[in-house]
Amino acid sequence: MNSNSTTAANSKGSAPFETPDYQKILEEVYEEVKPHIGKGKVADYIPELAKVDPNQFAMSLMTLDGQSYGVGEEQKRFSIQSISKVFTFTMALKMYSKELYKRVGVEPSGSPFNSLVQLEYEHGKPRNPFINAGAIVVTDSLITHYKDEFITLENILGFIRDISQTPDINLNPYVAKSEMEHGYRNRALADLIKSFDNLDNDPTSVVETYFKHCAVEMSTKELARSMLFLANKGTDPLTGKEFVTPTQAKRINAVMLTCGHYDASGEFAFHVGLPGKSGVGGGIVAVVPGKMGICVWSPALNKYGNSYAGTLALELFTKKTGLSIF
Amino acid sequence: MNSNSTTAANSKGSAPFETPDYQKILEEVYEEVKPHIGKGKVADYIPELAKVDPNQFAMSLMTLDGQSYGVGEEQKRFSIQSISKVFTFTMALKMYSKELYKRVGVEPSGSPFNSLVQLEYEHGKPRNPFINAGAIVVTDSLITHYKDEFITLENILGFIRDISQTPDINLNPYVAKSEMEHGYRNRALADLIKSFDNLDNDPTSVVETYFKHCAVEMSTKELARSMLFLANKGTDPLTGKEFVTPTQAKRINAVMLTCGHYDASGEFAFHVGLPGKSGVGGGIVAVVPGKMGICVWSPALNKYGNSYAGTLALELFTKKTGLSIF
Amino acid sequence: MNSNSTTAANSKGSAPFETPDYQKILEEVYEEVKPHIGKGKVADYIPELAKVDPNQFAMSLMTLDGQSYGVGEEQKRFSIQSISKVFTFTMALKMYSKELYKRVGVEPSGSPFNSLVQLEYEHGKPRNPFINAGAIVVTDSLITHYKDEFITLENILGFIRDISQTPDINLNPYVAKSEMEHGYRNRALADLIKSFDNLDNDPTSVVETYFKHCAVEMSTKELARSMLFLANKGTDPLTGKEFVTPTQAKRINAVMLTCGHYDASGEFAFHVGLPGKSGVGGGIVAVVPGKMGICVWSPALNKYGNSYAGTLALELFTKKTGLSIF
Amino acid sequence: MNSNSTTAANSKGSAPFETPDYQKILEEVYEEVKPHIGKGKVADYIPELAKVDPNQFAMSLMTLDGQSYGVGEEQKRFSIQSISKVFTFTMALKMYSKELYKRVGVEPSGSPFNSLVQLEYEHGKPRNPFINAGAIVVTDSLITHYKDEFITLENILGFIRDISQTPDINLNPYVAKSEMEHGYRNRALADLIKSFDNLDNDPTSVVETYFKHCAVEMSTKELARSMLFLANKGTDPLTGKEFVTPTQAKRINAVMLTCGHYDASGEFAFHVGLPGKSGVGGGIVAVVPGKMGICVWSPALNKYGNSYAGTLALELFTKKTGLSIF
Repeated sequence: MNSNSTTAANSKGSAPFETPDYQKILEEVYEEVKPHIGKGKVADYIPELAKVDPNQFAMSLMTLDGQSYGVGEEQKRFSIQSISKVFTFTMALKMYSKELYKRVGVEPSGSPFNSLVQLEYEHGKPRNPFINAGAIVVTDSLITHYKDEFITLENILGFIRDISQTPDINLNPYVAKSEMEHGYRNRALADLIKSFDNLDNDPTSVVETYFKHCAVEMSTKELARSMLFLANKGTDPLTGKEFVTPTQAKRINAVMLTCGHYDASGEFAFHVGLPGKSGVGGGIVAVVPGKMGICVWSPALNKYGNSYAGTLALELFTKKTGLSIF
Repeated sequence: MNSNSTTAANSKGSAPFETPDYQKILEEVYEEVKPHIGKGKVADYIPELAKVDPNQFAMSLMTLDGQSYGVGEEQKRFSIQSISKVFTFTMALKMYSKELYKRVGVEPSGSPFNSLVQLEYEHGKPRNPFINAGAIVVTDSLITHYKDEFITLENILGFIRDISQTPDINLNPYVAKSEMEHGYRNRALADLIKSFDNLDNDPTSVVETYFKHCAVEMSTKELARSMLFLANKGTDPLTGKEFVTPTQAKRINAVMLTCGHYDASGEFAFHVGLPGKSGVGGGIVAVVPGKMGICVWSPALNKYGNSYAGTLALELFTKKTGLSIF
Repeated sequence: MNSNSTTAANSKGSAPFETPDYQKILEEVYEEVKPHIGKGKVADYIPELAKVDPNQFAMSLMTLDGQSYGVGEEQKRFSIQSISKVFTFTMALKMYSKELYKRVGVEPSGSPFNSLVQLEYEHGKPRNPFINAGAIVVTDSLITHYKDEFITLENILGFIRDISQTPDINLNPYVAKSEMEHGYRNRALADLIKSFDNLDNDPTSVVETYFKHCAVEMSTKELARSMLFLANKGTDPLTGKEFVTPTQAKRINAVMLTCGHYDASGEFAFHVGLPGKSGVGGGIVAVVPGKMGICVWSPALNKYGNSYAGTLALELFTKKTGLSIF
Repeated sequence: MNSNSTTAANSKGSAPFETPDYQKILEEVYEEVKPHIGKGKVADYIPELAKVDPNQFAMSLMTLDGQSYGVGEEQKRFSIQSISKVFTFTMALKMYSKELYKRVGVEPSGSPFNSLVQLEYEHGKPRNPFINAGAIVVTDSLITHYKDEFITLENILGFIRDISQTPDINLNPYVAKSEMEHGYRNRALADLIKSFDNLDNDPTSVVETYFKHCAVEMSTKELARSMLFLANKGTDPLTGKEFVTPTQAKRINAVMLTCGHYDASGEFAFHVGLPGKSGVGGGIVAVVPGKMGICVWSPALNKYGNSYAGTLALELFTKKTGLSIF
């Protein structure tokens, strides 16, 4: 465990009714989840991700008062992949407010088979910002705003650095390149959306920018920290900076709960019971409104494409703390 | 207001920190929602439902300690329609436990267009128990258990009478008959599921039993009361009777949150932020885990088929009380 | 060989330039196809059809002048199944003329997976009268015309007896009953079409009438004879009776060519090059415009649901006679 | 009329039983079709095609003995668009023979809505070489063979020049460029096929090559001439050069008949009754096996995307000559 966590855990010891001993709970979770780390399968659709050692695990949380707790390799950065969709959706929602919903919905999408069927049937309007089609539209809206794809990427990175208060966050260009070379399905989605006039910019540029922000690397500690504004009605509780309005924060959390885990959103809602978003890099972020941001990471995925050990760890954590919304 | 409510409201007055004055809040909600009652459109796909006066409204809640609050015509019974799916799912989950998931999933389903596409693509296994296809499979599982459709219906009624502690609840045979005469799409779903061998019994019998339990009539007061066991981990807090295990109650709540409102489940999660289930009769039930059961009713529906004024009332209520899970 | 055929073959011997020796060609075809009889798989989706011995074969043709030729068990009756769709389409086209196309199209339908998707997307209007959905609509139109399902069935039988000049043709009630007990997918199609208001009558009645006319039993000799009016611009060349107009006959032939063999219509057009229609009972009828009607039967089916040996025999026949339209 | 045609017509006059007076028939067709020229709508999905004057018409035919007949602007070149798919399919079939069917089918495809659904459901294998998805796979197979997209294009042009015996045929680069700028749906198809590993080369290169061969410009006279090898079992009757085997020619004709006119293939089979292929530039080619090649052109399209006046002219022609296969 890192020293921060230990300090935090200690400082909590004296307030029995107010806060559970999160560090102790995380450690219990870690022990129980250990036999399961490595179970499942590392994402292999792009070579760069397939190289990752599956036997890794980290879990971090940060409470609204800035106390940080964690277990495992919580300083190690990994590919955040679809977790980046939370950040781009946040940026676009701030920019466009409700206008954004003209271009992308907020409803669950059903089975992956439907992705193209639905786009076709619903004339190029994706169901929500967390399926690939929706995230591509969101990225397009950012490029339209910033008028240039490189400035857009820089602003996405700037936003992530800002909410995580970590200036050196960056993307892994090898992962981005690998995605570009293998991401033909995402290109098909972008082209189809463009054919329905729901993309302002060149589909290839949009998809490349999308792949780049998916290739951002962060640690669980940084990601847990970056969820604080969503746990605190849109405002970073430590810096006081308002990133989105309380209503927008509520919207983001609601979409995470209903659409955050592909075809296992219902399972996640049941097992974990928190707004969350997973990525095929093995990371999952979760928000406990009014309380904390959480992130867990373990690269091997279950059959739905969500971290096997990570999902289990979150389930154990909400069970032990009673933090599930149900 | 009924006398119960007044008493309840009074009895609360002395505990400022523990409980908000729910009666007062409901009355505020009622005032604010009044200009919107009647907006939207009464369900007209079957003649019997089309006759209902749209200018009606009622809202009730009951806390775990049995205190009841309400506004509007909260004793008036209306057609519960799809709210009945919560009851049949509960019964089937108790009977079959996890085995039930072999026949029906727990994930959101996407657009209505997909209902048949998805059944086809997923070989007759409906996505969740709250879409019609799923509720039909659930009803079939009950008939298999009780070995007879009439005994099944009697047991469904018995269950509803039990959880609502109201012995005279019954179904409206005219509505059931009207559905049978116009419900060809539901028959198509049942036949298709049968063709995939995921229906044990005769599709016509199953669909008729399904239409019958949808035609049950209850008041908001009775429905709010009937949600208590779901707000209390599966056990009725007043009678002490366990209907389902805590895990099963959590599952039911999770499915209500992610799949309870057709193609507006995401909107409902955002605006209301509670597990809930709507019916085209204009009723919506909701559960505040650990606290209360709620029901609102107003027959005119929004474009998603959910009560217009009812959805608004629930949104105002969760905003005023801070009970949203987000 | 039956005596008719022999006579016919003899009578042909003296006209070397006008007519090929069809009997000899059929016998050659029979020899070449013999090693393949029994290959494939008898339809097993209903128990009654599954009982049929796969090692059977018959092939018949009748020229416009009434000469009849044949090999194998050409007097043995078998279940005509979807070949009946040619007869009901003919009857409906005569009754409704172009009005019929408002309810059913004349275009190929693509893969079987699309049957429900397409009905859904095209609001209950089937693509053509030879897919099940289309034949169900056609049967419905006949019931509407005759005002009663039993009278309709009697008229269908009457029509078939008339065009085949065989008064004792009838249906096999065991096959019809077996279909009714297992044909849930067809019921689903009928219910779905009804939900789109493209069915006048009760779906169950329509589907039962449909199953009954599919259960008609005829021999290849009778079926070859019943194709004569289609080879002769709508008029029976032997009785002089006009069943449909020349334009309607052309339409029926065109639809047989493009839509007559489910998902193997393209293959059939290539290999056989004649308008034709197959049934899962193992029969295939074909029309040589201006020349003859043909029927072949062998119960074992290829992977597309068309008679294995039958398709091969037709291919050999058109190759040997140069009768392919290409 | 051009002098060629007149000569041809004259030379025919002396053989009353052998050949109809095609020139006279074409002139009659022209007269009857004149009031309909300009009806419908010029393709407007790309700016370059939208500019074309709709009030144009030409019709040409060439018999196997090289006699040429024609009416209207039969020397004027227009954008052949999808007619080019016949040429690329021919080339690929010659190269790969039956192996080609592993990558693209030969069955009709149903409604345009299904294009993506079907590709998805059938794992990236297009239904036939005449829908866009199929033609893209065919073009890819040519690039794989020639190892370079420019050499491929040169060979496609060479092949067209060869079969039409016209050395100066070329493509219109403005049309090709215009397609590239607006053809996002085709790009989506190519990317999706690539994602299923059914494209060897870069999707953008393949689509560009595809757009280029669609932008080839030819006159009806040249196109009628270029159909001769298909009317003559694969061998050019005038040069004696075998382009494909008789079986392959039969296959190409069969696919033209069942799949040549998008969602109006059934209508075309009925009205015209000949293997044919249309393009959105307003051209339609047709083949009368054993007799002739035909081409008609008029830019305004009917609702199915086929030339309005062109379809009508072909229908009149086959009616007057009795050349329909039915």
